Amino acid sequence: MERRPNCMNGGDGPTSYFQNSSHQRAGISAATAFIQDGIAEELNLGVILHNNDVNTARNSFAIADLGCSVGPNTFLAAEAIIEAVRLKYYSKSSPAGTAAALPEFQVFFNDQVGNDFNTLFRSLRPDAGYFAAGVAGSFHRRLFPKSSIHFVHSSYALPWLSRVPKEVRNENSASWNKGRIFYTEAPGEVWTAYAAQYAEDLRSFLQARAEEVVIGGLMALLFPFSQSENSSDESRLSRLFNLLGSTLVDMAKRGEIEEEKVDSFNLPIYLPSSTEFKALVEENGYFSVVRTEAMPPPVTGAVSEGFARAVRMNMRAANEGLISNHFGSQVVDDLFEKYEKKLIVDSTSDLLENSTGEATELFVLLKRKLNSCH
Amino acid sequence: MERRPNCMNGGDGPTSYFQNSSHQRAGISAATAFIQDGIAEELNLGVILHNNDVNTARNSFAIADLGCSVGPNTFLAAEAIIEAVRLKYYSKSSPAGTAAALPEFQVFFNDQVGNDFNTLFRSLRPDAGYFAAGVAGSFHRRLFPKSSIHFVHSSYALPWLSRVPKEVRNENSASWNKGRIFYTEAPGEVWTAYAAQYAEDLRSFLQARAEEVVIGGLMALLFPFSQSENSSDESRLSRLFNLLGSTLVDMAKRGEIEEEKVDSFNLPIYLPSSTEFKALVEENGYFSVVRTEAMPPPVTGAVSEGFARAVRMNMRAANEGLISNHFGSQVVDDLFEKYEKKLIVDSTSDLLENSTGEATELFVLLKRKLNSCH
Repeated sequence: MERRPNCMNGGDGPTSYFQNSSHQRAGISAATAFIQDGIAEELNLGVILHNNDVNTARNSFAIADLGCSVGPNTFLAAEAIIEAVRLKYYSKSSPAGTAAALPEFQVFFNDQVGNDFNTLFRSLRPDAGYFAAGVAGSFHRRLFPKSSIHFVHSSYALPWLSRVPKEVRNENSASWNKGRIFYTEAPGEVWTAYAAQYAEDLRSFLQARAEEVVIGGLMALLFPFSQSENSSDESRLSRLFNLLGSTLVDMAKRGEIEEEKVDSFNLPIYLPSSTEFKALVEENGYFSVVRTEAMPPPVTGAVSEGFARAVRMNMRAANEGLISNHFGSQVVDDLFEKYEKKLIVDSTSDLLENSTGEATELFVLLKRKLNSCH
Repeated sequence: MERRPNCMNGGDGPTSYFQNSSHQRAGISAATAFIQDGIAEELNLGVILHNNDVNTARNSFAIADLGCSVGPNTFLAAEAIIEAVRLKYYSKSSPAGTAAALPEFQVFFNDQVGNDFNTLFRSLRPDAGYFAAGVAGSFHRRLFPKSSIHFVHSSYALPWLSRVPKEVRNENSASWNKGRIFYTEAPGEVWTAYAAQYAEDLRSFLQARAEEVVIGGLMALLFPFSQSENSSDESRLSRLFNLLGSTLVDMAKRGEIEEEKVDSFNLPIYLPSSTEFKALVEENGYFSVVRTEAMPPPVTGAVSEGFARAVRMNMRAANEGLISNHFGSQVVDDLFEKYEKKLIVDSTSDLLENSTGEATELFVLLKRKLNSCH
């Protein structure tokens, strides 16, 4: 059976994503206010529950959390969405007789097949006020029946590509990404290959969601993005990825890992620009962009050495599966120890202390249109 | 977090339920023909898809498999149901123009929180032709939104009680079940306590399903049952349980386990009679009994020593969690080795060779009525 390595670390041990996702948590909290505004202003409950036939008892509101992973963040967004829909319902209801029509909520938690759904299910509160379901599979494909989802949420998952573009692993290609694991600080051809893969993946994502989301339904997406329209992206996250790459190169130089292994390893991650993302939404044609917010990275409270440790742990929790799969699990402890040292020694304080104020994360709220319209 | 011990053995190793469920597989195959007949004769697609509003694109058929466990049997029933609905659709469709209305299928695989959903998701074929979701939780409670399920299937799961009735563990009660792990071959008070717990659980089950299943929707249930209307049940399965109990008593006599531990251990399993089951369905009032079939145990091909091994493995796969939780995991290997020997030495050949021809399994097809009607 296929094993997907690009999943967050499972379980709830010290190197798990469960224990090392405070950055993501802070980002989701910041986005929650936008989501709640969006529901208050943009969600027409009458319209989106239209397919719940009034002649039957069905009256349910379905939420899909795509790339949910497992951890304390997993339930935050869904619960905020439910709270906002409830508030909206109560504020719109006539005083008497309509209370019975408050919808029931169903939340589908989706991630790759390799995600630790057993831990996810054990973390669910039985009295959470919604019916939960787990859905395993790539969100670049259809996951749900047509017109069955009222609200899609996805945080920090969209930059993951369905695969590393083939060209960057081909030493006969101009896009060969020798001695790096990411496309920034690389020849333009590498960036082009990554951008093309991202476009293909986002097209698949939007097409699948266009079929699944009811007309009038919303989709809230939060993801790190690039302020640059070309390959010269110097965002903090891409610099952190490149530092991880140069840690691997150092290890290869010292003979601790094979150089060929480093050359053939690339992160399946792409940070689009806002323009690039919106152009693909427009090309798809089924969603209108209701709101866009560029946000500085969330303040997590950690600084200096503490922050280097936090970055190391967050980076490890998110990428250990991939790295372990490619280089072998014996490399992982050593790599991330060296990475933390490099973060402290090599990097400038703005990188560590997260103090540039630069907007690094994009929140986008999309609404499913009546028909495709370019 | 709560750990539910009464789950089948996870994973796919030699003692897993995955590897030791051929009995259940044969039973499900036998029931499949009844399910397919039921769909052909009783399912009115026009009625049950009524709540898929014609003005929207939604047109999906939802199947819930309750107590699905994990193994080669997990997908059998759902796939047979889908095939039968497809066949029915094609046989009813007018020759042209309606093909687009073939519904999409969504299958919810439900079992307790402790079930190995990670293995279940890895076993799913991505091209299975339906959207799969996992739902963790007790089927004695609501699991799905109102009127959202078109077909419920449950095989071999309904006899599991939500708990052992308290009285049978109370040494001051007339229902105290000292020296036994099951209610047959016990005083009538033990049986009464088990029967009351079963009635309470089945009431909860039926009430939850009455809310979840659309009007006209079907529920196919397969479970071992008792031919007796009182505590004198001598069915093969209850004799197999009692042999397991006497193996434990033997071990206590030899000081290998504590006698008190045996006295306080009871299987949370009850085998209702057909009359008892139907009376509870009638009391609930939301379902009509469309078909009942009492079936002999499926022929699995194994006999004599081979069959004793198969019984040992099947019993272990189904009960190891409970036993390990109560007696400690170090007891399990020894217990089941002794159980297999006891099966060969103590038991009569009709028990081992499964040759009585007695009907031991009940297939029931229920249909959701328009309204409760007693």
